[in-house]
Amino acid sequence: MRTTGIKHFRKKDFPTDKVRRFLEPGPIVLISSAHKAERNIMTLGWHMMMEFDRVGCFIWDQNHSFELIRRSRQCVINVPTYDLIDAVIGIGNQHGPRPDKFDEFGLTPAKATKVTAPLIAECFANFECKLIDTSLIKRHSVFVFEVVKAHVATSPKYPQTVHYRGDGVFMISGRNVSYRERFKRVNL
Amino acid sequence: MRTTGIKHFRKKDFPTDKVRRFLEPGPIVLISSAHKAERNIMTLGWHMMMEFDRVGCFIWDQNHSFELIRRSRQCVINVPTYDLIDAVIGIGNQHGPRPDKFDEFGLTPAKATKVTAPLIAECFANFECKLIDTSLIKRHSVFVFEVVKAHVATSPKYPQTVHYRGDGVFMISGRNVSYRERFKRVNL
Repeated sequence: MRTTGIKHFRKKDFPTDKVRRFLEPGPIVLISSAHKAERNIMTLGWHMMMEFDRVGCFIWDQNHSFELIRRSRQCVINVPTYDLIDAVIGIGNQHGPRPDKFDEFGLTPAKATKVTAPLIAECFANFECKLIDTSLIKRHSVFVFEVVKAHVATSPKYPQTVHYRGDGVFMISGRNVSYRERFKRVNL
Repeated sequence: MRTTGIKHFRKKDFPTDKVRRFLEPGPIVLISSAHKAERNIMTLGWHMMMEFDRVGCFIWDQNHSFELIRRSRQCVINVPTYDLIDAVIGIGNQHGPRPDKFDEFGLTPAKATKVTAPLIAECFANFECKLIDTSLIKRHSVFVFEVVKAHVATSPKYPQTVHYRGDGVFMISGRNVSYRERFKRVNL
């Protein structure tokens, strides 16, 4: 299951209020977190935009990451491409703190700028997030994050992402089509 | 912009706790609603699974549908396929109650079984929903729905859906790949 030979993307800063480009289509993401001496990664498909720089994530309280994120009030939302499918599935299968998931799946932790949680270097995009509302956690397991810093690969413009359907089936993102001229400007 | 020649799917009842198959990949959906003599449709990309039969939707309070859904405490989440792109964009462009969007875009309202909001017959899947938590509306514009009845086309198994990236660009869903044998059963 070890992920080998995965390229590291060259990345640039990206506007935090444009992250919908990568999140609104609904890809599986990898959430990295850290608290004190611990770090972790989890696979997540239950997320949505809640403002242009705000993301809601449903994180089950039985996930080891739940407490790391709740206590540190931070995380990184990493967007993997299809070539990371082994890590996506392997991390989703694993629960608990050991073995360390960076080591186990050959992923490289990179230093973030505004949070202590590590970026996953092999992911196409990394969104550093701060937890801005804890009031939905107990009732709905929903964490509300503000994206405070975004790093996105310089190319390709649209990565091939994986989208989960349950029952072990993934939809792989297809072609991109612009209908820009058909939109009222205010609705873009 | 009128939608013509769109097929009506033959549909069957579908388990409400399996709707993630169609929603978790993150497609654009059409939300239909009704209250008293009014009905409406809106285009929505900001939604997520919150349990296996529960969906959270971010609905902006400036949308005409906002009040219809809040007051009726119901809606239908309809999943359109790519051949409905004209309606998806046209409905997204239009605000307010008139003209009636079913008439304007050649869509057929069909009777639901557990809510008064109409199903959109031309959509591949229709999920009848009841609003089960209003406490997130004021603070976050998030409506929490329980799916109480699901209707899904008998074929194809996986429709070609549209996923929005902002700036007028849609990602069209690609191929589906099963990795079922790689999952621990408990994580499927």
